[in-house]
Amino acid sequence: MAVYLDNAATTFPKPDSVYLAVEHALRDIGVGPGRGGYKRGIAASRLVFEARELLATFFAIKDSTRLVFTQNATEALNLAVNGLLHPGDHVVSTTMEHNSLVRPLHAAEERGVEVTWVTADRHGFVSTDKIAAAMRPTTRLVALSHCSNVTGTIQPVEEIGILTRKSGVLLLLDAAQSAGHIPIDVNKLNIDLLAVPGHKGLLGPQGTGFLYMAEGVDLMPLIVGGTGSFSSELGQPDVLPERYESGTMNTPGIAGLKAGIEFILETGLERIRQKETVLVSQLLHGLKDLPGVTLYGPEKHAQCGGVVSFTVDGFDPATIGFRLDNDYDISVRVGLHCAPFAHKTIGTYPGGTIRVSPGYFNSEEDIAAFLEAMRTIVSR
Amino acid sequence: MAVYLDNAATTFPKPDSVYLAVEHALRDIGVGPGRGGYKRGIAASRLVFEARELLATFFAIKDSTRLVFTQNATEALNLAVNGLLHPGDHVVSTTMEHNSLVRPLHAAEERGVEVTWVTADRHGFVSTDKIAAAMRPTTRLVALSHCSNVTGTIQPVEEIGILTRKSGVLLLLDAAQSAGHIPIDVNKLNIDLLAVPGHKGLLGPQGTGFLYMAEGVDLMPLIVGGTGSFSSELGQPDVLPERYESGTMNTPGIAGLKAGIEFILETGLERIRQKETVLVSQLLHGLKDLPGVTLYGPEKHAQCGGVVSFTVDGFDPATIGFRLDNDYDISVRVGLHCAPFAHKTIGTYPGGTIRVSPGYFNSEEDIAAFLEAMRTIVSR
Repeated sequence: MAVYLDNAATTFPKPDSVYLAVEHALRDIGVGPGRGGYKRGIAASRLVFEARELLATFFAIKDSTRLVFTQNATEALNLAVNGLLHPGDHVVSTTMEHNSLVRPLHAAEERGVEVTWVTADRHGFVSTDKIAAAMRPTTRLVALSHCSNVTGTIQPVEEIGILTRKSGVLLLLDAAQSAGHIPIDVNKLNIDLLAVPGHKGLLGPQGTGFLYMAEGVDLMPLIVGGTGSFSSELGQPDVLPERYESGTMNTPGIAGLKAGIEFILETGLERIRQKETVLVSQLLHGLKDLPGVTLYGPEKHAQCGGVVSFTVDGFDPATIGFRLDNDYDISVRVGLHCAPFAHKTIGTYPGGTIRVSPGYFNSEEDIAAFLEAMRTIVSR
Repeated sequence: MAVYLDNAATTFPKPDSVYLAVEHALRDIGVGPGRGGYKRGIAASRLVFEARELLATFFAIKDSTRLVFTQNATEALNLAVNGLLHPGDHVVSTTMEHNSLVRPLHAAEERGVEVTWVTADRHGFVSTDKIAAAMRPTTRLVALSHCSNVTGTIQPVEEIGILTRKSGVLLLLDAAQSAGHIPIDVNKLNIDLLAVPGHKGLLGPQGTGFLYMAEGVDLMPLIVGGTGSFSSELGQPDVLPERYESGTMNTPGIAGLKAGIEFILETGLERIRQKETVLVSQLLHGLKDLPGVTLYGPEKHAQCGGVVSFTVDGFDPATIGFRLDNDYDISVRVGLHCAPFAHKTIGTYPGGTIRVSPGYFNSEEDIAAFLEAMRTIVSR
């Protein structure tokens, strides 16, 4: 029995309704929104509109046109960082970030933006006080991930949001590991920019994601061109969402994403989170008992998302990943997980960790099988 | 019987194998390439590698790593234009371009790039002599579409490629309406940059496309971030294709695109082109006989891609589009087709045209039904 435990990379499987929605969009609708005015084109426009509305409701976004579809969260983060920052602007970020945020910020540094990288503690926590201390009069943005993809650490976003709002600084949240796992209300959390992948916790297909930008936040578009409306304007239209959605969209993917959100709403986010918490708890307890295992991330389960990272004394993570895959058909992720500074922070650079990320479709039997396999591997 | 005649926007239907390939990627592979080292991840990497190789072979690209996947042709054109041009560079383009090229060039103008827009003749043809005359010592790039999405006019790309190569200027070809219709050999045509959508002539799903860049052409990436390799580097890796493929890709879409290309190879591009030529010829002959109809584009069928544009005296194109859709379930495109300057060139601005674009899956009966409907509409 194959066991997939890399849901932090992409959730698998998806609900059956997601596959069916993609197929319906491909076979029965077939075209994209905003192009032809014929019935098929209108059906595509309606589908994308409904997906946008549903996502907006899910994240408590009042005006769904401020939610623009992207190919993935990386594109959303690039749009936010490149579209917002000018030379001289200062940004506060953290050492727990994924390359999808680190690299656009690093590229911004090369064009004169200044970035302060606040160091997290050894459990991956970023303190609001440290963020406050890093702020300057030129600080335009605080940018961080909601939940670490290395340690599962959930950051105190509510506190940080109060700080940024009070300071007149914008808050960009990378929700790659939290959307679909933890409730996100953009108003309650004072989020100005929210970058979300469609294919992780939201259970949609790969090739989907979005950026939300709060009212008053105006970004330079990253990609300009055909939008299916305002054809005659030489420049990119000012109207949302068209301003940020150039070229033919991934309509089948968006159809699948809509079905993913519908599944979450039917199931209940609380129930999904509860299931993941049970599995993470089972993982943490089981791993703690194994000889030579070091666990990383928060000590309290409530502060931990769906990700558990560990190392084993005397074992290269790659060896464990290979044996789990080869001997037991168990898929986990090993290495740096695209977040080298997070590993420097928790002391696992350059070897990295073994990362186990269960999803809603995993069972306690899956975790038991993983733990049994680990027991055999570490006892040689 | 519904008749779809907007294949220039997106081809529909796709071959059944395309739908099945997407479903296989979603249900059986499930993950993306370059992330996990487990079997499922390796299967995804192999799939994307094979798609890349197949596309490279199809366009006579020797090194497939120089072909990078994008969300659509618009992203590919933005990557080419933004990644290549610096203030002071001069570009020669034409009045026949789609907004997907016009708008990135216009944005480049705003940061100090100079653009000369060569005027096409009233059939939509761009002369190589005019392009030569527009060149300056600072000319870095000639950028144009292979085949107009408004008039179907096929440009003399071979001649233009000889000119650009001789002049040491790069050639960017927008193959949105030619890829999968007309053979494209990047070496024979001296193409330095080739932007291609996956969901038009190549018969793949929406959300796919690519940019090819010839050896020696180095572009600044448009989007940076996680690439699944070289995790520890602060900057974007230099290695191709990772340098230009950040974030989780649309693997199901790429699987479908691979199936689309396989269908074209099995069927034969020549046979596809022949079928389209027969249908276009039937369209042109049928429309010519209708009262009040003005046809645009080339007079010789051999110079015309899969697009026919026309207007009818005394009728707003939108009215005809509505009646075709509403009364006959026939889908065509009306308006400016995201290319306002092309309409200014051929004299159909701002009303636009009615655009009919048959595809390989259309039959002569479809065209006959369209012509019959048009006969009724124009006779009131």
